[in-house]
Amino acid sequence: MPTSPSDLAYVPFVSVADMMALVHARGLQRVLSELTDAIEAEFRRWEEYDKTPRVAAHSPGGVIELMPVADDESYAFKYVNGHPQNTRRGYQTVTAFGVLSRVDTGYPILLSEMTVLTALRTAATSAMAARALAAPDPQVMAMIGNGAQCEFQAEAFRGVLGVTRLRLYDIDEAATRKASANLAAAGFEVTACASAQEAVTGAQIVTTCTADKQYATILTDNMVGAGMHLNAIGGDCPGKTELHPDILARAATFVEYPPQTRIEGEIQQMPEDYAVTELWQVLTGAAQGRQGADQITLFDSVGFAIEDLAALKYVHRCVTEGARSVPLDLLADPDDPRDLYGMLRRAAP
Amino acid sequence: MPTSPSDLAYVPFVSVADMMALVHARGLQRVLSELTDAIEAEFRRWEEYDKTPRVAAHSPGGVIELMPVADDESYAFKYVNGHPQNTRRGYQTVTAFGVLSRVDTGYPILLSEMTVLTALRTAATSAMAARALAAPDPQVMAMIGNGAQCEFQAEAFRGVLGVTRLRLYDIDEAATRKASANLAAAGFEVTACASAQEAVTGAQIVTTCTADKQYATILTDNMVGAGMHLNAIGGDCPGKTELHPDILARAATFVEYPPQTRIEGEIQQMPEDYAVTELWQVLTGAAQGRQGADQITLFDSVGFAIEDLAALKYVHRCVTEGARSVPLDLLADPDDPRDLYGMLRRAAP
Repeated sequence: MPTSPSDLAYVPFVSVADMMALVHARGLQRVLSELTDAIEAEFRRWEEYDKTPRVAAHSPGGVIELMPVADDESYAFKYVNGHPQNTRRGYQTVTAFGVLSRVDTGYPILLSEMTVLTALRTAATSAMAARALAAPDPQVMAMIGNGAQCEFQAEAFRGVLGVTRLRLYDIDEAATRKASANLAAAGFEVTACASAQEAVTGAQIVTTCTADKQYATILTDNMVGAGMHLNAIGGDCPGKTELHPDILARAATFVEYPPQTRIEGEIQQMPEDYAVTELWQVLTGAAQGRQGADQITLFDSVGFAIEDLAALKYVHRCVTEGARSVPLDLLADPDDPRDLYGMLRRAAP
Repeated sequence: MPTSPSDLAYVPFVSVADMMALVHARGLQRVLSELTDAIEAEFRRWEEYDKTPRVAAHSPGGVIELMPVADDESYAFKYVNGHPQNTRRGYQTVTAFGVLSRVDTGYPILLSEMTVLTALRTAATSAMAARALAAPDPQVMAMIGNGAQCEFQAEAFRGVLGVTRLRLYDIDEAATRKASANLAAAGFEVTACASAQEAVTGAQIVTTCTADKQYATILTDNMVGAGMHLNAIGGDCPGKTELHPDILARAATFVEYPPQTRIEGEIQQMPEDYAVTELWQVLTGAAQGRQGADQITLFDSVGFAIEDLAALKYVHRCVTEGARSVPLDLLADPDDPRDLYGMLRRAAP
């Protein structure tokens, strides 16, 4: 007679609908602030993690990547694809899901959608970096590139740094209209601009998050004023950059994981000995962040597995506290671990 | 107002219960035979695959591995852990799940349990190798190690090669009792033996699938007679072997993926220039298999990602033909791919 799987066999699954319900139940602002703190807590423990560059399978149409990372207690990986042509067919360019596991047993303890969660953690990571690097009390943020990530960045910078005035520009006016409508409805003071040059005027922070461009120059040197903090999100794979190298030559550059950023980030344009500071060292106090009010600081963000692990741990904690999930019968759990065959036999109808 | 996710957002999930139902609906023998052919079909296309060694996260208690592989159409990865101490706590030593994706869109098209499926594909791979390498018409198989994999091996060798007489030995008598009872009930002629030496007497095929032993010597040279086929399953990670090196010096050895087998297989005991033949080349006719009735052939099996991809493609085909699965809301699918934030907003309660 078939018996029900034991509790050990079940892994909580957080669907896209569940993730959106979690965000609405806690509030987007609170989730972004909590995520920012959760990611910073893991960045401060940077040296305790076993880190590897992501494992990528490239094809003519795009890439599928696995991003694993672990410390003594937790293991996580994210599956993420990047297929620039997908939107033409009604698919997402990027989709993602992830798993959190216990290192001591190897058992998964959470399976979660990560398309929405990655948007949240990317914005939270940017806010974390800006909190550490930007000049105090930024009021105005320019946002070049008004696609899927734009509004999440704005929300995180409002929650964590108090930014409420936004200047938007995208080469696609429809994207700017979409983001302007969303952000005005969310209470931001929004100015839609006709050029990147116009957008950066008067901004203390500039966020670049364009997509699909190969070696684009979204910002040129003359557009970057003294004391600005640049939050460069869009240049995140080989052959994809947003900033003119002259900006990099002037700026103090901060990165997540140098072996990955030198391949994927803005600094792929620079010589291998171009100096960068690891962001985690700024957060622990081991390295200096901004040096003076006039310095240009640059967060050359490409995304790293520790951010995903922090986000999955955060979602797991929310589930433990009652956030909605569905138990999945993902793991075989025979009464006698050596008797997998007997379990199969007994499941006969 | 929240709207329902579109079909693109859903990924079919095959649970442990669904996998067992699939096996019973089609019949275990048929599933193993079909899997053997499915794996052989992919082995014949070996050169079309983008292969990498597995990505392992080691800890004092065990290992968590990701095994990705892809060709032009399909991408698959398996998550699998190995924690020898787990059984003491009522957990499985090995659990696994996997994902099959389309390379052109990067979208997952199947999430499946793989604890049961790995047991099936491992047995099918062994049967595939023995079909190509063993002397004709084997009647008797010795099985040293009577744990979770034992009965699946027996079923596959019956279905694919017609083996019906089994001689079992395990240092743990309870394991032999468990396997003997299961296999006798399944119609095998089973002899429980008091030693490995006794078990191999009169056997044409010897399957070794012990666990937990470090550099164990399950078989010594004097136990291996002319013409035997050795199916070595248990030696599958660094520091874990089953065969005395003298056997390897006499045998013709066939492997899955040499870069992985030299680290994980029986041949880790041998010099780096120890000659091996890649099994896929035997299957395509590019290399010779058995050379004469007296030769000892050895399949030094460690498991490879192409076997998992073949198994996931097989399960996906079964699902397409009506096998049970549950649709999971794993992928965000906003009406406008650039408006992830708008999708989140509209999901507000």
